[in-house]
Amino acid sequence: MSDLTAKLASTSKVEMTQLVMPPDATGLGIAFGGRVMEWTDLAASMAAMRHARMPVVTACIDQLSFLAPIRVGQIVVLRARVNAVFGSSMEVEVNVVAEDPANGERRDCCEAFLTLVALGPSGTPAKAPILLPQTEEEEQRAREAVARRAARMARRRKA
Amino acid sequence: MSDLTAKLASTSKVEMTQLVMPPDATGLGIAFGGRVMEWTDLAASMAAMRHARMPVVTACIDQLSFLAPIRVGQIVVLRARVNAVFGSSMEVEVNVVAEDPANGERRDCCEAFLTLVALGPSGTPAKAPILLPQTEEEEQRAREAVARRAARMARRRKA
Amino acid sequence: MSDLTAKLASTSKVEMTQLVMPPDATGLGIAFGGRVMEWTDLAASMAAMRHARMPVVTACIDQLSFLAPIRVGQIVVLRARVNAVFGSSMEVEVNVVAEDPANGERRDCCEAFLTLVALGPSGTPAKAPILLPQTEEEEQRAREAVARRAARMARRRKA
Amino acid sequence: MSDLTAKLASTSKVEMTQLVMPPDATGLGIAFGGRVMEWTDLAASMAAMRHARMPVVTACIDQLSFLAPIRVGQIVVLRARVNAVFGSSMEVEVNVVAEDPANGERRDCCEAFLTLVALGPSGTPAKAPILLPQTEEEEQRAREAVARRAARMARRRKA
Amino acid sequence: MSDLTAKLASTSKVEMTQLVMPPDATGLGIAFGGRVMEWTDLAASMAAMRHARMPVVTACIDQLSFLAPIRVGQIVVLRARVNAVFGSSMEVEVNVVAEDPANGERRDCCEAFLTLVALGPSGTPAKAPILLPQTEEEEQRAREAVARRAARMARRRKA
Amino acid sequence: MSDLTAKLASTSKVEMTQLVMPPDATGLGIAFGGRVMEWTDLAASMAAMRHARMPVVTACIDQLSFLAPIRVGQIVVLRARVNAVFGSSMEVEVNVVAEDPANGERRDCCEAFLTLVALGPSGTPAKAPILLPQTEEEEQRAREAVARRAARMARRRKA
Repeated sequence: MSDLTAKLASTSKVEMTQLVMPPDATGLGIAFGGRVMEWTDLAASMAAMRHARMPVVTACIDQLSFLAPIRVGQIVVLRARVNAVFGSSMEVEVNVVAEDPANGERRDCCEAFLTLVALGPSGTPAKAPILLPQTEEEEQRAREAVARRAARMARRRKA
Repeated sequence: MSDLTAKLASTSKVEMTQLVMPPDATGLGIAFGGRVMEWTDLAASMAAMRHARMPVVTACIDQLSFLAPIRVGQIVVLRARVNAVFGSSMEVEVNVVAEDPANGERRDCCEAFLTLVALGPSGTPAKAPILLPQTEEEEQRAREAVARRAARMARRRKA
Repeated sequence: MSDLTAKLASTSKVEMTQLVMPPDATGLGIAFGGRVMEWTDLAASMAAMRHARMPVVTACIDQLSFLAPIRVGQIVVLRARVNAVFGSSMEVEVNVVAEDPANGERRDCCEAFLTLVALGPSGTPAKAPILLPQTEEEEQRAREAVARRAARMARRRKA
Repeated sequence: MSDLTAKLASTSKVEMTQLVMPPDATGLGIAFGGRVMEWTDLAASMAAMRHARMPVVTACIDQLSFLAPIRVGQIVVLRARVNAVFGSSMEVEVNVVAEDPANGERRDCCEAFLTLVALGPSGTPAKAPILLPQTEEEEQRAREAVARRAARMARRRKA
Repeated sequence: MSDLTAKLASTSKVEMTQLVMPPDATGLGIAFGGRVMEWTDLAASMAAMRHARMPVVTACIDQLSFLAPIRVGQIVVLRARVNAVFGSSMEVEVNVVAEDPANGERRDCCEAFLTLVALGPSGTPAKAPILLPQTEEEEQRAREAVARRAARMARRRKA
Repeated sequence: MSDLTAKLASTSKVEMTQLVMPPDATGLGIAFGGRVMEWTDLAASMAAMRHARMPVVTACIDQLSFLAPIRVGQIVVLRARVNAVFGSSMEVEVNVVAEDPANGERRDCCEAFLTLVALGPSGTPAKAPILLPQTEEEEQRAREAVARRAARMARRRKA
């Protein structure tokens, strides 16, 4: 039986650190977008699994923006967390920071919002546990996730 | 010197075929989201390079939706094309279809809109060539890209 | 039950596009032969699967020639198609073209003829569907495949 | 000029999270040792780079023990930190925990002590910054690192 | 200056051992052809480099036959050697054996003949050292390589 | 039934040759430690499997020292062999040599001692066959393995 007790928002937090190696980069020495997306999806999946305690699948990327290039030799830190739960869907936010090991300087490089879905034993969507925000910041994130979802629904109705 | 002659919309089309192998999948035998995102970014990059004839970099994913799971052993066909050009930015659309080799049946699996930026010799954004739609469908795509861009700008101003 | 209806030669066509990335290349910035062979085998497998609608296995490479080096940053287009069917065996031809994204110039880089075998449910060779050439070019390819097969058989008898 | 100011022990801490995927495992579904070693070396390298703010190279693994098997689908958390500095050498400790996403249970899976060396601009060993332990636990780790180093030296003299 | 002293045939021998892992295989648990071709090309390249003491590039596969399937968990041993030298070209033979670790049984799985070309400092073909066969078997291999080359030339003239 | 006949020490020998490619290296062109550890573990596993004729798992690295850097473009030869057997445990030694293809010069680059454990059908440790040293050198290796094991046990008791 799955564990549907409400979970603290902080339970889902994931910190994933990667060293950018030559195969992650284009000929120009900059990490190529597809690799960063792959890492982002992995970090988001682990955050959603930590919250749901079930297998999860990515339903969509609502938005993913590259803010600055990431270079070979930099340390990349991805932080993922569940912002809000809507039945079987979870909005996960991922923030990516690149750190220059020569001086420790950090720079925001990528920000993404993804929707993942919890899967039951039959592989179909299953209700995820309720999310309990504790801090003011966590409540703010949940409110913004609700607003983003409403805007998304509105856009879809128009299309 | 770069070649800034206007280009036909059809020049940028890319067809990329992949056989889904075990390392592309999770333990459940389903291609994991991050791998499909990586392929999508590659296909989009090649479409943008074919149009711009310059190096390109991915600026953002405006939307990427998974419509159906992709399984190990299936043939995945990604089709990418530039929909519209805005100075140095290009909206690229990618459609992903999975084909069951046992019966040839095809199914839409993923749809994405990305913005890529053309880069000049100094690595900074550079004007991309104008896009010439020829068919009614290509004109329709360009109009929709303009509308999506306006909506995006409006959302960003609000945020 | 497998679908053994005769198939048009054009049904099997595959177009596979790859962006040559640093891990595909040697220290000299040239795609290493083994990687191109791997892509060639994948493209050939997908063409044979599209024709046979069964699992397939590569039996041999009859000939594979590199005509020009492929460089990091180039777009590689592999085109594969079934030329002829001999019981459970299929001759597949793969043509590899490298495209320079800076000017759109294309160059033939590799040409290969492979024999793949269709596999039945027990994993043993199974009759593949008949191939229907439609154009004059497709008939020419089928005739040449028969000649290559005869020459191969003759060489094998001598050895 | 490199930054040789003494650094707090906590500055070097790295948390690296990996989802164990099928290509990381043997046919038995267990992460193979070499992959875990690769991750361990990466985590250790990032901890050493964060302390030294210079390129680093792994000189040796003094001991690496697997305590429990790691399975496909588990979340692996590697924690690395510099224990002590000896001129240009740093002892880095890595602890690996596997988490079962179905119930959140965590289990110690691997523990390793590595020696890494800081490299100056010419690629030869260069003095690393002094390490400042702050907590009682950090002082304990530094003392034990000194003892391990003495034992290692003694063994080497005998050999 | 390159070292053009004649080399013994045995100097070029390479033994390359691989453990077949899940990512090397198709969903059926059998190493896919493209991976074995990649390994074959690597082994051939190392044999040619050992003989020529120059960078080398693969010009063609004259023939590559799969004799038996290779399974996940098996140990694959590839043996490569230069058979004969023709100016800047070298014929390299690769034999692939799969070993079942449960009983030590070995089985011939793949046999290939490749032509590689030695490259001078400017990246163009350069004369490779003369090959000195010592044993009767090595002389036999050289004679057969000459015959294969003559047959290849004859086929090419006809085409 | 497993084959527990005593095996000659030479039966377990493995020679594994790798060409160091760009994805194996850091930005500095030097093979990164984790990759060499991965290869070392694979070579050790194959040696242990050849001796035990059972699945094996790595229990620990007792010591692994890098003696010299390995560069992109070099040929790496790993030689592994079982030194001694202790019930279900085997001490495996791996020696890594890097060869410069430009002049054939070889250099010791890494030396490691690992303990691997044979696994029975239920996945639990199972008695491995006895090892029969034949040469004086093989006897010497077995004696040293016994001494290393005793020292390890003593250290563990102290800790």
